[in-house]
Amino acid sequence: MFASIKRLLIGRPLKSAELGEQKLAKSKALAILSSDALSSVAYGPEQILLVLVTIGVAAFWYSVPIAIGVLVLLTALILSYRQIIFAYPHGGGAYVVSKQNLGLFPGLISGGSLLVDYILTVAVSVSAGTDAITSAFPSLHEQTVLIAIIFVILITILNLRGVTESASILAYPVYLFVLALFILIGVGIYNVMTGQVSPELHAPIGTPVAGISLFLLLRAFASGSSALTGVEAISNAIPNFKDPAPNNAAKTLIAMGVLLALLFSGIVWLAYYYGITPKVEATVVSQIAEETFGRNLMYYFIQGTTALILILAANTGYSAFPLLAVNLAKDKFIPRMFTARGDRLGYSNGIIILGVLSIVLIVAFHGQTEHLIPLYAVGVFIPFTLSQTGMIVKWIREKPKGWVTKLIINAAGALISFVVTIMFFLTKFEQVWTILVFLPLIIYLFLRIKKHYEAVGEQLRLATCEPPIVIEGNVMILPVAGITHVVENSINYAKSLKADQIIAVYIPFEREEEAAFQEKWEKWMPDVRLVTLHSPYRSIIHPLLKFIDTVQRKASESSYQVTVVIPQFIPKKGWHNILHNQTSLMIRANLLHRRDVIVTTVPYHLKK
Amino acid sequence: MFASIKRLLIGRPLKSAELGEQKLAKSKALAILSSDALSSVAYGPEQILLVLVTIGVAAFWYSVPIAIGVLVLLTALILSYRQIIFAYPHGGGAYVVSKQNLGLFPGLISGGSLLVDYILTVAVSVSAGTDAITSAFPSLHEQTVLIAIIFVILITILNLRGVTESASILAYPVYLFVLALFILIGVGIYNVMTGQVSPELHAPIGTPVAGISLFLLLRAFASGSSALTGVEAISNAIPNFKDPAPNNAAKTLIAMGVLLALLFSGIVWLAYYYGITPKVEATVVSQIAEETFGRNLMYYFIQGTTALILILAANTGYSAFPLLAVNLAKDKFIPRMFTARGDRLGYSNGIIILGVLSIVLIVAFHGQTEHLIPLYAVGVFIPFTLSQTGMIVKWIREKPKGWVTKLIINAAGALISFVVTIMFFLTKFEQVWTILVFLPLIIYLFLRIKKHYEAVGEQLRLATCEPPIVIEGNVMILPVAGITHVVENSINYAKSLKADQIIAVYIPFEREEEAAFQEKWEKWMPDVRLVTLHSPYRSIIHPLLKFIDTVQRKASESSYQVTVVIPQFIPKKGWHNILHNQTSLMIRANLLHRRDVIVTTVPYHLKK
Repeated sequence: MFASIKRLLIGRPLKSAELGEQKLAKSKALAILSSDALSSVAYGPEQILLVLVTIGVAAFWYSVPIAIGVLVLLTALILSYRQIIFAYPHGGGAYVVSKQNLGLFPGLISGGSLLVDYILTVAVSVSAGTDAITSAFPSLHEQTVLIAIIFVILITILNLRGVTESASILAYPVYLFVLALFILIGVGIYNVMTGQVSPELHAPIGTPVAGISLFLLLRAFASGSSALTGVEAISNAIPNFKDPAPNNAAKTLIAMGVLLALLFSGIVWLAYYYGITPKVEATVVSQIAEETFGRNLMYYFIQGTTALILILAANTGYSAFPLLAVNLAKDKFIPRMFTARGDRLGYSNGIIILGVLSIVLIVAFHGQTEHLIPLYAVGVFIPFTLSQTGMIVKWIREKPKGWVTKLIINAAGALISFVVTIMFFLTKFEQVWTILVFLPLIIYLFLRIKKHYEAVGEQLRLATCEPPIVIEGNVMILPVAGITHVVENSINYAKSLKADQIIAVYIPFEREEEAAFQEKWEKWMPDVRLVTLHSPYRSIIHPLLKFIDTVQRKASESSYQVTVVIPQFIPKKGWHNILHNQTSLMIRANLLHRRDVIVTTVPYHLKK
Repeated sequence: MFASIKRLLIGRPLKSAELGEQKLAKSKALAILSSDALSSVAYGPEQILLVLVTIGVAAFWYSVPIAIGVLVLLTALILSYRQIIFAYPHGGGAYVVSKQNLGLFPGLISGGSLLVDYILTVAVSVSAGTDAITSAFPSLHEQTVLIAIIFVILITILNLRGVTESASILAYPVYLFVLALFILIGVGIYNVMTGQVSPELHAPIGTPVAGISLFLLLRAFASGSSALTGVEAISNAIPNFKDPAPNNAAKTLIAMGVLLALLFSGIVWLAYYYGITPKVEATVVSQIAEETFGRNLMYYFIQGTTALILILAANTGYSAFPLLAVNLAKDKFIPRMFTARGDRLGYSNGIIILGVLSIVLIVAFHGQTEHLIPLYAVGVFIPFTLSQTGMIVKWIREKPKGWVTKLIINAAGALISFVVTIMFFLTKFEQVWTILVFLPLIIYLFLRIKKHYEAVGEQLRLATCEPPIVIEGNVMILPVAGITHVVENSINYAKSLKADQIIAVYIPFEREEEAAFQEKWEKWMPDVRLVTLHSPYRSIIHPLLKFIDTVQRKASESSYQVTVVIPQFIPKKGWHNILHNQTSLMIRANLLHRRDVIVTTVPYHLKK
């Protein structure tokens, strides 16, 4: 039943050979990998204005130079990441770049912060999208958390179905959102050109403003830069592209950069020209749309696609997280299970863990994840800085053709990213300090896991191991609960294996039982030695373990191997299990974990 | 660590031989077995007045004749149960009596309703006691459920420590409560005698009252009878008494009856004489205490001991439930685990299950369990009726010396109990109908469990079974994941057992791996046959199971036994388990439950 529900939800399993069909064309890749970056247009400009409004409406003109700064940063990042794509065509992004060029720790810092960041991406964007919906339908407000969880589950299932399938479904809303914003910006500019908008609504650029400070402007710039999160996603997901993967990925990256730049500058400029003030009850984009169209169908179209893309921004996390996890797992920093492809050839363990952890975050923050945004932004800019720095080292070390230009591009990217990171720490410390706690923790965990895997590998390697234990003979111990068919079967089995010694063990709770049982046994199976262990405290496990220890000690002296043969009832129906004391399970668990004995389970299938 | 916490909470384990020391003297037995019955004095009289008040204050004098009716019923029950104690000195109460004299179904009806009833006892009395406390400290009101759960856990731990220990602790509050009520009644009567209480407060007995009906009086009588729940507990718990157990139990029963009669009639009479009207904000007992003493220390002493005894009434459930469960489990109607004595010689499974289920009830009803009282009363009166009827049948059948007197006593008990049961159904149907649903369900479950145990027993019996399967030879299948020390160990083991055939199975996900591995194997272990199973869907379990099925089919043709040898890593630390794919566990679970093969687990203890 579980199998058929799974089939229904995620589709038929795919053969490993079908992997090629699961690769993405550029247009679809753009949709699923840029939804995070593009969606930030819906809140990035607002973040700038929210800082400036603390000085006054007159300061709003500063949003234009700040936006230009953001565009410069965007250009530097896009060009830098384009170089990373060609230099590291197998993906892995910041983690691989930092690790290979700067060393282990910078690599783990990048990997760790991105890993956490993608979880934050999912939680933050789904919560934001849900907020947009519940703002439109206030009666749903009570159910915010539940709705957000349902969205996460839906996106998780979509991703378990496979990359191409999720891309086909998710491409529409992304392109509709882009279309909606282009219409908005186009009509807005037309209105401005034809003089339908009063030029009195805004202070001219350059107006002196009292109280403005460099700190404030840097803070506004940092806030605006949070619109650039998601830019790195494509460099992580190169293996998902159709061949030639690096070329296609690079083209997609450029397309995303151009779209992002156009939309971002369009929204910032219209907001400035319309003199829009950020309000609690309506977002900046919603105000521009209302000024431009009034509350007509177009307005609702823009609002609807905005809500959708906020939710779908989560999908970028789903594309990048599992691939990053594969890279970390291949290097043995996280559990090996992240490298296994699921039925639909996606890295399903990564997808499921991402879904579960973001649901945990949503529940923990009651769906109010806005104040996680700065944390999430700083978690992106740390790996931005490290990967660009890694590229600088690479160019200096390898000096390929045209390396100076390349170096300058990456150096510019590294410098600006570093400045933004520092700004986050300086201006929003109370919201980002937690990263200083959890990053070291995660890296510690990474190293512990790696150490364990290496220790295991070493123990298993034939060459380095002590010579295999020679087995001179076998002792089989059979705990018995009575004289039944089950016991008879187990004894037959032990005899058929020609064990050198077979010992049946009976554990009576009462002294009187002891003699009676021994007598019965003597008559029934005189050729098998019976040992009775009186148990004054009514425990079966303790006396049995003690006895096995004794036998084991003696046996190992003459290189004999001890095997414990345990019969186990398998009832026809699952609920019947609670009717049987699970002694055999307990014996097994205790034996395997504490002793060096082999445990053989003889199933006895009940027919009724 | 778990072991030492357990030791701390419930004390050192006791030897089976120490059972004798865990028996109860009469005075302690009275305390723990009568707390339920005695505590009902705190609400029984109130229940009568609550019905009468619907007619008017003038009707209150009817409480006196109704109380006399209750006393008659009490006398009949005490005498009847005294006869049951001597007739069934091994305990078991209503379940055993009904089953032996009336047949299986009446027995199961008694057993089932008492089983549920003891859970209700715990939930209802702890909730009532918690209510009394939160009424005194309104700031705790929000935490009612939590406080009730803590009390249940405390009482559970106390009972796990053993019968004598809980009796020593619980005896004080019970006797203090009895003392408090005796002082109250004594001082009250003294005040009445000395004329300090106005005789104008109540209507004289016999005053005609408009609107009184037989139905209403019966309803008041039924409500008052709920004070008699718990009377049967002693007859269930005879095995807990010191020898001679039946004599001691009978004496304790009489003592309880006398105490209950005195306290009940005293409270009813004072309530009548003082003209007390039931109020939401103060109980009847509290009003009498206030009239008698004012709000002085004595008043708070009475209130405090009342709250305590309400909580401790739960203990009666803890004394009776496990013993009833043992009787049902011995007859195979409920899981066998209820017959096992724990470390402290109590039937700990019964105690724990009772605690858990009553917590579930408390949580489900948010600690508001008052409207479960009628359900709980009817659940007692059904087995009362059945057991008395059973005794009638017994006397008629056996005709011992003086059987006519005995018959008359039990017949009176049966008749009155039957009338009370019917009255509950007639007058409080909306609160008791659920018993008509869950009793049949429970009995169905009892019978299903019995059927299963009987089927198992039959399959195990040597005489009736098909002859044991002859094993002509052994085939061992070893799933291998690589060429490692672990695989070497397993192969050595299989060889040492002189298996007739050893097959190593390797499951590559990629075609390319297949040939490479076969070549490596050929060089390493040429004398062991290797089978590779390509798995296009990346599953290990499915191809392996298919292969095992094929081997199994062939092997069984020549009476060969198939054993699957699975290596299992045992990491040094528990958390390391998540770093290893639990393939061996999954193979085991799948094999044991679906196939007729033996599974041998070879542990490989990781040293680091």
